[in-house]
Amino acid sequence: MSDRSLLVLPGDGIGPEVMAEVMRIIDWYGDKRDLAFDVSEDLVGGAAYDAHGTPLTDATMERAQNVDAVLLGAVGGPKYDALDFSVKPERGLLRLRKEMDLFANLRPAQCFDALADFSSLKREVVAGLDIMIVRELTSGVYFGEPRGIFEEGNERVGVNTQRYTESEIARVARAAFELARRRANRVCSMEKANVMESGVLWRDVVQEVHDAEYGDVQLSHMYADAGAMQLTRWPKQFDVIVTDNLFGDLLSDLAAMLTGSLGMLPSASLGAPMANGRPKALYEPVHGSAPDIAGQGKANPCACILSFAMALRYSFDEGEEADRLERAVEQVLAQGVRTADLLNVEGASPATTREMGDAVIKAL
Amino acid sequence: MSDRSLLVLPGDGIGPEVMAEVMRIIDWYGDKRDLAFDVSEDLVGGAAYDAHGTPLTDATMERAQNVDAVLLGAVGGPKYDALDFSVKPERGLLRLRKEMDLFANLRPAQCFDALADFSSLKREVVAGLDIMIVRELTSGVYFGEPRGIFEEGNERVGVNTQRYTESEIARVARAAFELARRRANRVCSMEKANVMESGVLWRDVVQEVHDAEYGDVQLSHMYADAGAMQLTRWPKQFDVIVTDNLFGDLLSDLAAMLTGSLGMLPSASLGAPMANGRPKALYEPVHGSAPDIAGQGKANPCACILSFAMALRYSFDEGEEADRLERAVEQVLAQGVRTADLLNVEGASPATTREMGDAVIKAL
Ligand SMILES: CC(C)[C@H](C(=O)O)[C@@H](O)C(=O)O
Ligand SMILES: CC(C)[C@H](C(=O)O)[C@@H](O)C(=O)O
Repeated sequence: MSDRSLLVLPGDGIGPEVMAEVMRIIDWYGDKRDLAFDVSEDLVGGAAYDAHGTPLTDATMERAQNVDAVLLGAVGGPKYDALDFSVKPERGLLRLRKEMDLFANLRPAQCFDALADFSSLKREVVAGLDIMIVRELTSGVYFGEPRGIFEEGNERVGVNTQRYTESEIARVARAAFELARRRANRVCSMEKANVMESGVLWRDVVQEVHDAEYGDVQLSHMYADAGAMQLTRWPKQFDVIVTDNLFGDLLSDLAAMLTGSLGMLPSASLGAPMANGRPKALYEPVHGSAPDIAGQGKANPCACILSFAMALRYSFDEGEEADRLERAVEQVLAQGVRTADLLNVEGASPATTREMGDAVIKAL
Repeated sequence: MSDRSLLVLPGDGIGPEVMAEVMRIIDWYGDKRDLAFDVSEDLVGGAAYDAHGTPLTDATMERAQNVDAVLLGAVGGPKYDALDFSVKPERGLLRLRKEMDLFANLRPAQCFDALADFSSLKREVVAGLDIMIVRELTSGVYFGEPRGIFEEGNERVGVNTQRYTESEIARVARAAFELARRRANRVCSMEKANVMESGVLWRDVVQEVHDAEYGDVQLSHMYADAGAMQLTRWPKQFDVIVTDNLFGDLLSDLAAMLTGSLGMLPSASLGAPMANGRPKALYEPVHGSAPDIAGQGKANPCACILSFAMALRYSFDEGEEADRLERAVEQVLAQGVRTADLLNVEGASPATTREMGDAVIKAL
């Protein structure tokens, strides 16, 4: 028994394939670096629905609450499109986020030099890009009540509620300011304070937290629509961006796409510290379940591998080992090893998921 | 007296400068093409606040209801940042949209060949781009109740409500399908049906309207975050995009930025037909009030001029004259006439707002 526990939830589509490579890397750390993990595995999303009729059982939820970190592959797929809203694969993921209270979703958008030409943006716009989006993950319109589809007069009405409390805003703002201090020390907060009162409160609270506790960090505010524009025009102007759940969903996906290689991008979702000092945490790649290529051994495991690197850094205080793993991935890219998503030459023969995993382990 | 009435609301920042050039073009149509307009002018936004303490007086609202089309310049500026939410310049614009019931906001994102290199995206990704975003403009989280900042326990809570009725969704869907029939016949609808019930209703109603009335149009659905990605990756995959007020705000600004020349993009906001058969209508450039360059004669009037071209097409059934005006603008660009925003060479001497207006009139 080590004192590092992990719950692995491979999920749907390419989730199991990419997670298999992460498992080998976890084993490598136990064997070679004397960094052992207790790993247990369970179901989430469509896989859980198929087995239990729910995208997350109470038992799995309970296990997630009692480990140091959860590693998740991906959820969803066309097979589950017709399911009722309440049992869709996504609800499993949303329940984990909500019940573990993982309020700070860290989404680095980093452009790997070897891959800059994959971006639809010009090389000079994205080469060297390194921004961190901090998205609020447990509140806002994703969880606000009332919600639902109601009958009113003779027609249906769809309702969701955007709702933010002062403390919800303050805690994610703090997470962003803390990260900025270890980076370029700049935070840009995004909302629609010109249209939404929840945006007015968001802006005010972020400013108050700044003035009271983080006066050394440079803070700016931007409307989210202008933010989408500026991310497209000149993303390198940003260091840390902090925004709400829904804006964060769109803006972090946009930022991810700027880098041109979705198969490379990890994320961390962090909550409050547990008794052992480690934060509640879930790590997952930004890419989805990619049902079109699932089961073919084609998927790029790097995003999932780099998510484990984030776990080393944020859950286990192993920053140097995280750096090592990230460098190994960069080295492999520099060597020209490429899964199919990273190749734009017709007829070139891509590395398989397994071969990519092999190359990373070799580089380690 | 003609039977074509226009209310001109130049607004704030560069609004008055760019609108001055539109006025000269309107005069040209009266003189040279026997197409006369009754033009009246009034205040909106910060300009109205300065004069009357409100961003839109009841009298101006009344006038707007009684003309064929409103032409608006831009609203807002740092001078008004500290104003209370209820009297911010933007509220004037939002009141016009709401009380005129302008539910369909048409935002073409078109890349002018002569300007393709201005985009931060690669030329091949954007050259020839021509998509039409249809954004719902009078409902959703912009207008839903309850809304506000409340005290709860010991803290403030910010609340807004996303709310869509079936008929609100159906009418904007119809507008999108109608437009698609005159274009490439494809509509992509965007929402977050995987997370929001209002998105589930949106998707269902768009599909129902399609199946009942527009089976000839090709319809697809996409989550809005994936939409942001796909717009960035390969925007030419889209023809018409239909989406709600808030997603439309971000996605249309993102699409606009892809073209690389915000100073070129017009918009039309249309409502139901009036007694004379013309739709309630407001036309405005996509760019904002650009306070940093206001009053210097530097602003690009093309977006505002092209907004008037949309008025010719959608309010006055003068499609050929609209084409003529659009061609004139393209010709001027092809000749190399450039306002400062369209020049990336240091030291090159840009055309002024007036010179750009002159060139368009000459090309007409
Ligand atoms: C799968 C879905 C529920 C999720 C979200 O909307 O948050 C995804 O898009 C994400 O960004 O993690
Ligand atoms: C000025 C503002 C209220 C407006 C909006 O949010 O709708 C603007 O961004 C737009 O897109 O027209």
